[in-house]
Amino acid sequence: MKTPLPVSQAMLACAILLAAQHGSAFAQDDTQSIARAGSQPQATGPAANFSGQVKVDPLWPKNGQINASGAYVTFAPGARSAWHVHPSGQRLVVTAGSGLTQEWGKPVQQLRVGDVVWCPPGVKHWHGAAPDAQMTHLAVTGMATGKGVEWMEKVSDDQYHGR
Amino acid sequence: MKTPLPVSQAMLACAILLAAQHGSAFAQDDTQSIARAGSQPQATGPAANFSGQVKVDPLWPKNGQINASGAYVTFAPGARSAWHVHPSGQRLVVTAGSGLTQEWGKPVQQLRVGDVVWCPPGVKHWHGAAPDAQMTHLAVTGMATGKGVEWMEKVSDDQYHGR
Repeated sequence: MKTPLPVSQAMLACAILLAAQHGSAFAQDDTQSIARAGSQPQATGPAANFSGQVKVDPLWPKNGQINASGAYVTFAPGARSAWHVHPSGQRLVVTAGSGLTQEWGKPVQQLRVGDVVWCPPGVKHWHGAAPDAQMTHLAVTGMATGKGVEWMEKVSDDQYHGR
Repeated sequence: MKTPLPVSQAMLACAILLAAQHGSAFAQDDTQSIARAGSQPQATGPAANFSGQVKVDPLWPKNGQINASGAYVTFAPGARSAWHVHPSGQRLVVTAGSGLTQEWGKPVQQLRVGDVVWCPPGVKHWHGAAPDAQMTHLAVTGMATGKGVEWMEKVSDDQYHGR
């Protein structure tokens, strides 16, 4: 018997499924389509993969032309992803607030609005909000290999604070 | 003898080249890289392809993992692209202001912050600012075929105003 998904992961899967269904106009390739602001359900970042409150607003799925999905991710102050790698890389554009990121074995770096991050395939890292400010980034996640992210262990408080 | 590029097109080409050089860290695939806000030169949308003042802030080029480039495009009030098609499609996310878009043969539609547009390959359309407000969108342009856009005729004032 398979272990049921935690509620938060089930909700995320559901939200992504709903978004994919809502965005079915995106599947039509003979006409321009518009997904209106607020029409694609927001999901909560699962507690297994994030520390603190993280919200995911899906923007578009990968398709036959563009091999990457898009989403806004908003981290509450102090919230961050777990350590992870992207099998096909990821672009981030910081759109609001102030954040932090770290590559395994390197110092924590600050992120500010307008900064653009390239996370190459297989490079272990995390990203999140600054301790006292929230942060939103638009994430464009490579899906060429079919899987956008491989999750690892949580980022400890000592790692987060660069201690 | 080849006709020289108009100054505006030469400047755009130059800015894109400079941005590509600046963003050379992006070419490294063994480490995370950050292009800081303001470090990638802004270009002016060439008069041949745009009406009114249009500024392009390159964010990232396509690479071996993600087959689409990213840029912010900011249109002054009344400014708009010429009619065009994207051979590999384009995603737009409206990040500021208020805009308009139109697919050939269909009504002009309003765009607001948070709206997400999918422009499929080969669908003739334009996008730009509202008459009295500027508009910025983040554009993710499919480059799978090597060419992001094919430009056509300008959008007339009657077309822009839906007359």
